[in-house]
Amino acid sequence: MTTAEIIAIGTEIALGQIAETNTRYIAEMLTKNGIHVLFATAVRDDAELLRSALNIAKDRVRLIITTGGLGPTENDLTREIVSDLFNMPLIPSGESYTNKPQCADTLHEGTKKIKSIPSGALIIPNDHGTATGFAINYNETDIVCLPGVPGEMRQMLNSYLKIYKARHLTDDTCIATRQFHTFGMPEFEINKLIGESGVINNSIKIMTLVHDGIVTINAFTTSLVKEDALQKLDAAEAALRKTLGQAVFGTDDTSLEYAVYELLKQKNATLAVAESCTGGLVSDKLTNIPGISDYFPEGIVAYSNKAKITILHVPELCIATHGAVSPQVAEAMAKGARKVSEASIGIGITGIAGPGGGTDKKPVGLVYIAITGDNFTEVKKCQFHGTRISNKHFSANTALYMTLRFLQNHKVD
Amino acid sequence: MTTAEIIAIGTEIALGQIAETNTRYIAEMLTKNGIHVLFATAVRDDAELLRSALNIAKDRVRLIITTGGLGPTENDLTREIVSDLFNMPLIPSGESYTNKPQCADTLHEGTKKIKSIPSGALIIPNDHGTATGFAINYNETDIVCLPGVPGEMRQMLNSYLKIYKARHLTDDTCIATRQFHTFGMPEFEINKLIGESGVINNSIKIMTLVHDGIVTINAFTTSLVKEDALQKLDAAEAALRKTLGQAVFGTDDTSLEYAVYELLKQKNATLAVAESCTGGLVSDKLTNIPGISDYFPEGIVAYSNKAKITILHVPELCIATHGAVSPQVAEAMAKGARKVSEASIGIGITGIAGPGGGTDKKPVGLVYIAITGDNFTEVKKCQFHGTRISNKHFSANTALYMTLRFLQNHKVD
Repeated sequence: MTTAEIIAIGTEIALGQIAETNTRYIAEMLTKNGIHVLFATAVRDDAELLRSALNIAKDRVRLIITTGGLGPTENDLTREIVSDLFNMPLIPSGESYTNKPQCADTLHEGTKKIKSIPSGALIIPNDHGTATGFAINYNETDIVCLPGVPGEMRQMLNSYLKIYKARHLTDDTCIATRQFHTFGMPEFEINKLIGESGVINNSIKIMTLVHDGIVTINAFTTSLVKEDALQKLDAAEAALRKTLGQAVFGTDDTSLEYAVYELLKQKNATLAVAESCTGGLVSDKLTNIPGISDYFPEGIVAYSNKAKITILHVPELCIATHGAVSPQVAEAMAKGARKVSEASIGIGITGIAGPGGGTDKKPVGLVYIAITGDNFTEVKKCQFHGTRISNKHFSANTALYMTLRFLQNHKVD
Repeated sequence: MTTAEIIAIGTEIALGQIAETNTRYIAEMLTKNGIHVLFATAVRDDAELLRSALNIAKDRVRLIITTGGLGPTENDLTREIVSDLFNMPLIPSGESYTNKPQCADTLHEGTKKIKSIPSGALIIPNDHGTATGFAINYNETDIVCLPGVPGEMRQMLNSYLKIYKARHLTDDTCIATRQFHTFGMPEFEINKLIGESGVINNSIKIMTLVHDGIVTINAFTTSLVKEDALQKLDAAEAALRKTLGQAVFGTDDTSLEYAVYELLKQKNATLAVAESCTGGLVSDKLTNIPGISDYFPEGIVAYSNKAKITILHVPELCIATHGAVSPQVAEAMAKGARKVSEASIGIGITGIAGPGGGTDKKPVGLVYIAITGDNFTEVKKCQFHGTRISNKHFSANTALYMTLRFLQNHKVD
């Protein structure tokens, strides 16, 4: 199996000034193509450090993907160091300078630089930008150099992987992975149930990860034959679903909001959301899904009491009697959102996101979430313990999960 | 100056299945403490690979911070490998097993494991969890091992850095950095203006980064004396602000939404937002800021035409005549939001986020953003070229930046 190392180049990465997202994407794509990522390294824009990182990598893996350092400035060193280290002088790539509007104006030194490649390298064209990428081979190791701009890097990585796959069609072992996303069950409980279920054996490895209340179960398997690996995953999936029941809401790329969208579509139902403490996050998550507009007419961010009263028709007395953070107000918000929008389902969320605003009786993290349909209303009391932003995310995910369960278990019109 | 390497341990990181956020935090904290991060490495939960990563790191830096692999399972290998590699047998740390509710129930093998440390190591107590951290010294290199759970790791890193600082009080050079965030000016233009301004010299290094329309200028300087470094940054800041004018909206941790919040507070103004294509993202961003509730009464996610008409009182004829994506509807939405909420300022956003819904005349990425106050209304036409989600972010940031300029340049009541 091909082993790989990812090298992300940039001082701002080593200084922690940006969230480096390329490594994750590259790791995911390589894994999907059966490539075994052993190391990911981030290194400053420094000639000696980059040379050292490449030197170490070339001896420990068979595929190196670098990202960054291909631009026109003098901090961009990848071309020069690769050329020097592997003794392949830089030559013009022959890529046109004029087919892209960004570089049509001048043909200065920077432009020449970003179009040069080590002699003998394979050109990887950049459809979304100007810096040419390339791949070289040194002994048994392929070194693939891509830019740091995510949109450019992704397209070029995919171009390279097509070439890679064509070359390695007859290759040995493949890894297959599947993710199962769950909500509403603590991680230790899931691990306990998985342990008891007998899913884990010599051929299936399981790892759980938690994020804003979602517990994701990663199942891995390896096999010489792809079909065999997929069969093992199918068997694991059947066992997991039997054990964990409705806690499992989706696999792989399925987010909570996507699962909600799919069920809304299937049931031809519409959803309206009234948010206080989540401040629009539920609406934002839902509207990340293309096509949601047919099922999501509106969201109301009723942050002030006045907005709750005037737009959602929450009775003033209800707020005065029970307080804005109360099950009664959550329910009135859900019903108000449903009525105003004429949607099949209404959601109401009110709580104290923090860091201020908490009292002994109503501490920070207390959130009430209501869901209402034609013949059924449910209000859930939650107590979260995170920061303002994580309390918002936990609340939003709980509301989306409640919507899923509601759609699965109730008739909607 | 102390050189450092961060090693993040976990198969899920190398497989790209989670966004690894610890490295960024550690890099940022080390940099703030004048430590020079040269490399950041991610490695699988594999004994031989981890051993190899530690072996390489110990020869190239003077401080290694590892995160992950300290838990109770057999995949957690950090303690064992460090103990073996540096020849320091594992012994009980002596940390109490019973002072934390999470581990009060049983004292099984896993609990013993997570409380053990290499003999001679400095204990780094874990106030938020059960796994004990530790630091050892080998030749001239300190190796600090912390858990992977972010909340635990952060507290323990800060504990270690206090010890580190006490030891290195008399230490040599410090790095000082400052970030300047700009909006509305392309990166190449900013770089051109910076080049002409003379900000860059031997003592100040500049690097720009772009994210959802925000161009961040990172300025770095080093000096033997902290005050001297800060003076250099102050001079750079004055020059940058003079050159870039109102494009600069904040420094360091100031986000666009935080800058809006500060100005709303200063002017005692309130803001209401009517969103179509951004789907609640502007409201979500604003409500991430603690204290915003005094200045942000409500947001309306008017996704359907009906919601635009019934809640925001956009005239039906206006939509029929000009279409939902038009300057007229954006303006009517802004005015409607302002009127319904009685806020000082109203914002209206309507556009085509994509990937579907575009036409020749109104392509994907076309967005109209309106802002309205007592005596002034502005409508901006934007054409973005990203994915659905990035079009949402560009639109939201443009709306927030327009609000900033509006608050700076107009009287609000």
